Amino acid sequence: MSFSPLVERLMESLRVLPGVGPKTAQRMAMHLLERDREGGRRLVETLGVALEQVGYCRRCRTLTEEDVCSICTSVRRDDDLLCVVESPADQLAIEEAGGYRGRYFVLHGHLSPLDGIGPEDIGLDQLEARVAEGAVEEVVLATNPTVEGEATAHYIAAQLSSLDVRLSRLAYGVPMGGELEYVDGGTLSRAFNGRLPFRGE
Amino acid sequence: MSFSPLVERLMESLRVLPGVGPKTAQRMAMHLLERDREGGRRLVETLGVALEQVGYCRRCRTLTEEDVCSICTSVRRDDDLLCVVESPADQLAIEEAGGYRGRYFVLHGHLSPLDGIGPEDIGLDQLEARVAEGAVEEVVLATNPTVEGEATAHYIAAQLSSLDVRLSRLAYGVPMGGELEYVDGGTLSRAFNGRLPFRGE
Repeated sequence: MSFSPLVERLMESLRVLPGVGPKTAQRMAMHLLERDREGGRRLVETLGVALEQVGYCRRCRTLTEEDVCSICTSVRRDDDLLCVVESPADQLAIEEAGGYRGRYFVLHGHLSPLDGIGPEDIGLDQLEARVAEGAVEEVVLATNPTVEGEATAHYIAAQLSSLDVRLSRLAYGVPMGGELEYVDGGTLSRAFNGRLPFRGE
Repeated sequence: MSFSPLVERLMESLRVLPGVGPKTAQRMAMHLLERDREGGRRLVETLGVALEQVGYCRRCRTLTEEDVCSICTSVRRDDDLLCVVESPADQLAIEEAGGYRGRYFVLHGHLSPLDGIGPEDIGLDQLEARVAEGAVEEVVLATNPTVEGEATAHYIAAQLSSLDVRLSRLAYGVPMGGELEYVDGGTLSRAFNGRLPFRGE
């Protein structure tokens, strides 16, 4: 036996979620069908609308359903600081740590030649144009402290070297080999305050 | 900051899933929006259809989009054996274990007077009518070996006592492949009391 075809398909579909294997998918499907159809309907509705409407901020490329996101339009943020992160989740982690009042630029990934991900795929031409506008005085390269993140930071530093802008990197207070998304707020703030001039060695 | 309102609502909606807290919901939302919108759309589609169409088998009450489920309509199952389980997940576990070729009846819960769950809520009138039809010769009470499951089994046994049907309960004992050291005392004494002649096959 198995469940009915529709229940089987539901369990299969739930496995698109990260960290969800067959057993967890079964438990989720049972929970939704047996105990919380209302919650399931809300999820269908919200996920459908989000997939439809959430796109990328035209200016910083973060996830938003607006044309330009709320941080980019805010008049209370400093225009002279620009923080480059790999993902919206990294951006959120920095925001939640508090203390940073500049703008952001979201790469949605890092350079990865083997996967065919080059500079244009992570918006580096757009980043260069943004810095070339002249308002930004310092670019904080907050890519992940991983091999790929470091390489991406070096590439960006080289690309922006001809422009009149300071480059910095988060202080090593963030654990090597980790991902920003999972770093605690205290460590993140310290790393922000201790940021160093980028030397691009 | 937080994410845009729509992304926040998506993260909130994902928390209807069992075992999903704020951090996991965020990771799931990011994954769907950043890396697998196609999978997300399939989930929306499948979950929507499943919530709409999956109901309960008219005969055994398991989850199905049919009027009567495939096990109830199968001609290869024995009509004289009826296994009573608390949930479709329990039914699936028994099916996957293999060996059982009878029919099922799904309670969708157990008696719980404090929560206002009485006999009619778990379909006991329907179960009695089913057994009264006369084809069933043995009812296997496969409710969970918990206080509530035991109480429900006892209640059902009393209710069916006037009908001409054998009642049985799953054997209690030490789980296969386990170590005695880690088996709880209640299970161990049950296993002792129910000990069987050693055949040494």
